[in-house]
Amino acid sequence: MHTLTIPAYPLLEKIRQQKPLVHHLTNWVTIYDCASIVKVLGASPVMAHAAQEVAQMSNLALSLVLNIGTLTVDFVEAMKIAALSANKKGIPVILDVCGAGATAFRDEKCFELLKEVTINIIKGNASEIAKIAGQNVETKGVDSTEVAHDMVAVARALSLKYHATVVVTGKEDIVADGVTTYLVKNGHTMMTHVVGTGCMATSVIGTFAAVEPDLAFAACCGLLCFEIAAECAVQKAKGPAHFKEELFDCLFNLDGKTVDRMQRVEKI
Amino acid sequence: MHTLTIPAYPLLEKIRQQKPLVHHLTNWVTIYDCASIVKVLGASPVMAHAAQEVAQMSNLALSLVLNIGTLTVDFVEAMKIAALSANKKGIPVILDVCGAGATAFRDEKCFELLKEVTINIIKGNASEIAKIAGQNVETKGVDSTEVAHDMVAVARALSLKYHATVVVTGKEDIVADGVTTYLVKNGHTMMTHVVGTGCMATSVIGTFAAVEPDLAFAACCGLLCFEIAAECAVQKAKGPAHFKEELFDCLFNLDGKTVDRMQRVEKI
Amino acid sequence: MHTLTIPAYPLLEKIRQQKPLVHHLTNWVTIYDCASIVKVLGASPVMAHAAQEVAQMSNLALSLVLNIGTLTVDFVEAMKIAALSANKKGIPVILDVCGAGATAFRDEKCFELLKEVTINIIKGNASEIAKIAGQNVETKGVDSTEVAHDMVAVARALSLKYHATVVVTGKEDIVADGVTTYLVKNGHTMMTHVVGTGCMATSVIGTFAAVEPDLAFAACCGLLCFEIAAECAVQKAKGPAHFKEELFDCLFNLDGKTVDRMQRVEKI
Repeated sequence: MHTLTIPAYPLLEKIRQQKPLVHHLTNWVTIYDCASIVKVLGASPVMAHAAQEVAQMSNLALSLVLNIGTLTVDFVEAMKIAALSANKKGIPVILDVCGAGATAFRDEKCFELLKEVTINIIKGNASEIAKIAGQNVETKGVDSTEVAHDMVAVARALSLKYHATVVVTGKEDIVADGVTTYLVKNGHTMMTHVVGTGCMATSVIGTFAAVEPDLAFAACCGLLCFEIAAECAVQKAKGPAHFKEELFDCLFNLDGKTVDRMQRVEKI
Repeated sequence: MHTLTIPAYPLLEKIRQQKPLVHHLTNWVTIYDCASIVKVLGASPVMAHAAQEVAQMSNLALSLVLNIGTLTVDFVEAMKIAALSANKKGIPVILDVCGAGATAFRDEKCFELLKEVTINIIKGNASEIAKIAGQNVETKGVDSTEVAHDMVAVARALSLKYHATVVVTGKEDIVADGVTTYLVKNGHTMMTHVVGTGCMATSVIGTFAAVEPDLAFAACCGLLCFEIAAECAVQKAKGPAHFKEELFDCLFNLDGKTVDRMQRVEKI
Repeated sequence: MHTLTIPAYPLLEKIRQQKPLVHHLTNWVTIYDCASIVKVLGASPVMAHAAQEVAQMSNLALSLVLNIGTLTVDFVEAMKIAALSANKKGIPVILDVCGAGATAFRDEKCFELLKEVTINIIKGNASEIAKIAGQNVETKGVDSTEVAHDMVAVARALSLKYHATVVVTGKEDIVADGVTTYLVKNGHTMMTHVVGTGCMATSVIGTFAAVEPDLAFAACCGLLCFEIAAECAVQKAKGPAHFKEELFDCLFNLDGKTVDRMQRVEKI
């Protein structure tokens, strides 16, 4: 295990230059913030979920973000069509298993997606990922639950099972692709008081994955930039609402020196 | 009629400690703000509306908030399933009759809900509540209309009819459960310039009802905390957008001394 | 071509006095901001999309705003019902052809709407309008693409074809009704970093159209007020999130002197 400097900022610069289109089928609660976070990164978000157009929209995009936060049967069917189009084009598909473990329906739909399409990045908090990995956990809605397991091992095993990069967010984020594992230690507890920071993290990862084929590296860089921006933001915040506003603007204005100086990451 | 000091802050502390899960089936306009207001109170919001999972989700929760702001036939059917699950578990169900009186469809669906499931708290502005109570009013969309009636009497009668607590928001809010009636006099006209303060008030009431079985008392305490935070917020605001941001952060940081000092409430 | 002073502020005052109801069937991404921008203008937004109630809701309103950003088949069917009701009542119908050109489905639905109901104002960015006008363009999601054509001529021709006012937003906005063409030169590039400024502009136009029968004039005045507020806002902004908040409050507080002094508009 060793501390290193990850060249995360050059990826952010690449996003700002290339302005990739990131197609989302996401939840109704945080849909605006997911679009906004992609926009402040310098990329171009598009949200479209009609079964009749998702294949064509994903084919225009450079990555596809799926988030089951407010899923329905029809919505998941549209996700499958979009994902198959993304798979065919060869762009990365990111799935946020938001709320997995809360209901049987949610779990069933996650497993359907994982079975019927190729998911390149599986992302959730510890309890959600543990559930998808077949661990026995109890969850409370969409907020994380303490998980007693060794999540690094769980993430690696899940990664190998689905040939996917696995991202587990929490106090320390785990990014594992079966070969490499990153531990991202940036971020701030204030993020837990804002609805949608988890969904936004997924959209950030999806945006970084649009410009970088090493998906674990992309996810690691995305989380670093997002969470460093959060640390900058919290210094100016009087509460969660001000914090969120600062977070967007800090990410919009983030520079390379700050990313290099503030990052706390390990590769194991 | 006498002025009193309501122990509203201890309930807020209870929310912060117990972090109850509050399940919502709410409208697409203010869904994010409803989740956020629950979060800044210290509780845990979950928004889920698929017919296949709402019963299980409500069974995990400690209260259920229904808001018909952007209702459809299927959405109301999912509300019924969720409410029956909540009724069975014995947790409170709060219905915001948002926009009642604007269309026949909206009224019909309100009455269907009131007939087919147990609603524990009915909440609306004066024109909406008057409509549900069978008074003849004309409304204009989702914004309130002047109502000539004695709304306290209307609220009490409606409360008795449905064995429910009735909340009428306005310059002075009325909370009536057939025995006790509270008049909450806090708040500020700036709230009327922000989309969603009515919906947020409902979510606040739902969150307080999750930790307190006396629902009229819970609703009164929730409105007090929300509206005192609004009064604190308006002092720092240059307009509705800044006001809204301050409102979230004032509620997040609200303390007992402020709640006791600023509350203006009567019990009649 | 001559520079002139447009009496835009009196229309804003009329909105503040009359508080028209503006019915929306809009997209899920920016629905809150569309409602908010109508509210800070002093009008009353209502969002309702159930097929069973849209006709009645449009009949209560003074204008109808349609936005296909997250369209589905059913949603467009509800739009048609609402629009026919609006047509019958004689209130203006504004269509934001958001994302036109991105998918065949989106284009098809735009043309269906334009064929089956009367659209009084067609609004989009250059690539979207070019697509609707039958020009051969490639688009990238919902963000604008450089268009090589003479957009003033395109707008005029489209206006004549559908007997509608056409609004093309961009660095300079074009408003054409076949007789008069306005070029609105206010605004700021910061607007392009905020998700939803295009949708909000449509809602602003819809609100001005609710109080003024000369729709090109109404659209021109709406864009002027919105973009002058944006110019005021950007002076105080550290990034897109702060900018957006200031934009709402600047529009809420906008006065006649500022509108007269800052407007940059040509009539050709």
